Amino acid sequence: MLGAIEAGGTKFVCAVGDEKGRITDRIQIPTTTPEETLPKVIDFFKKYPVEAIGIGSFGPIDVNLESPTYGYITSTPKPGWRDYPFVQTIQDTFDVPIGFHTDVNAAALGEATFGAAKGLDSCLYITVGTGIGAGVLVQGQLLQGYSHPEMGHILVKRHPKDAYQGKCPYHGDCLEGMAAGPAIEARWGVKGVRLAEREEVWELEGYYIAQALMQYILILSPKKIILGGGVMNQKQVFSFVYRYLEEFLGEYVSLPELSEYIVSPGLGNDAGITGALLLGDRARAESRKE
Amino acid sequence: MLGAIEAGGTKFVCAVGDEKGRITDRIQIPTTTPEETLPKVIDFFKKYPVEAIGIGSFGPIDVNLESPTYGYITSTPKPGWRDYPFVQTIQDTFDVPIGFHTDVNAAALGEATFGAAKGLDSCLYITVGTGIGAGVLVQGQLLQGYSHPEMGHILVKRHPKDAYQGKCPYHGDCLEGMAAGPAIEARWGVKGVRLAEREEVWELEGYYIAQALMQYILILSPKKIILGGGVMNQKQVFSFVYRYLEEFLGEYVSLPELSEYIVSPGLGNDAGITGALLLGDRARAESRKE
Repeated sequence: MLGAIEAGGTKFVCAVGDEKGRITDRIQIPTTTPEETLPKVIDFFKKYPVEAIGIGSFGPIDVNLESPTYGYITSTPKPGWRDYPFVQTIQDTFDVPIGFHTDVNAAALGEATFGAAKGLDSCLYITVGTGIGAGVLVQGQLLQGYSHPEMGHILVKRHPKDAYQGKCPYHGDCLEGMAAGPAIEARWGVKGVRLAEREEVWELEGYYIAQALMQYILILSPKKIILGGGVMNQKQVFSFVYRYLEEFLGEYVSLPELSEYIVSPGLGNDAGITGALLLGDRARAESRKE
Repeated sequence: MLGAIEAGGTKFVCAVGDEKGRITDRIQIPTTTPEETLPKVIDFFKKYPVEAIGIGSFGPIDVNLESPTYGYITSTPKPGWRDYPFVQTIQDTFDVPIGFHTDVNAAALGEATFGAAKGLDSCLYITVGTGIGAGVLVQGQLLQGYSHPEMGHILVKRHPKDAYQGKCPYHGDCLEGMAAGPAIEARWGVKGVRLAEREEVWELEGYYIAQALMQYILILSPKKIILGGGVMNQKQVFSFVYRYLEEFLGEYVSLPELSEYIVSPGLGNDAGITGALLLGDRARAESRKE
């Protein structure tokens, strides 16, 4: 039996299940402080004979196995979680192999195994919600290098008619600063869900997301792109994404039909927790090799 | 003994050597048409008992092993080379394993094995010359997915004082359209080598390259970045790249000291041909496994 944690900024999802992605029990816990949230996580897993635990976490996190702070959540502004030894805290109670990646890398793995990119060794998973993040599978491996990707903060060209200054505390008008949920709300004065009928809102959103996809495609050449997160529930964004992306690419690269290449998650909201199970499975397999 | 081909738009470099990167003979051949260039390539290798050949090629190329046009140079505007079966033509004479990647992926492999990123399993190699291209090694593998990266054509924000319209026939003011050698010449009216004393030329160049590096870092998180190509012989660009990159990143990600993180090629002009030898070595190793 495998354990899985999808650690998000507002809630933790914990589950037990198997490497086929079958979940036999699950629980949701609000993300408050580590002292309050993690004992509830630990209590949940104590009920089960878990052989390994996979964690897909909000970030930034330290995923470098050779680093002294491997397994930490690092420079988050979230109270109590900055420089917090996440993996170590779980490991103190459960002496089992633990897999640790970003929440979006976990979701990419979930989608590539059982979801919209099933069977592919390469896919990009993007979430557009309160923030923008992306995970990517490259030739079967979750991408990491010096650290993990931070794709939500790439630079974008402003739309010539968009005067909004941007909401990112680090970069102002980076992608997240212009296109995440809070930017939509700040630009138009009401939450995105109340703007469903306003075409100009979603055209502008499509403009920025298409720019991001242009960069991701030219740099990563993924075999499939999955666009999830709360904002992407506004399905009308997809057609603007396709239209602008076609315009930006200018027939320079050949791609599959865009409506089949850039799609919604096949696992819905379960991409992350399913991927976390798979991270647990990979950690178990690694430990058996040793 | 291994054979290596670095196939460029203006010249082919062919070499024989070993997996330690030692080159025992080499030749340069002008790139004209395949009918003229390739027989000279073949004649060179006929003199040697090569066990495998590695090719790092200008592109776009088809690197998908499952594609019917694997091994082809595809949509290049270069007369005679469009939809040309490059690997097959070499294979017709030499019945040995052939490795085939982009020239810049080969250079990334060369630099990660014997050059400025020696011993790392991750590096990004960028060339800024008559075009802009980049190759990348991720967890020891040369990145490819649906196709190979085309990083030179990413979008950039214009410098507010830069009125030049851009030179890319596909995208106008993409990175290559604004920052490759021909763009510098078109913007300032003379070739870059004659502008060495004009600080504003290289500050603007650094502005665009730093933007590109921001995107590459946030998306790929390479362990080392190597900046080569003719334009980067203007070493004064580096300090502008560091300055602008620091400004753009806004302390959002922690990186090594930039002057150690972003460097010139350790192998000078031999990164590509050395990498091609290593591609030959990998192809030989693969064929032994089968």
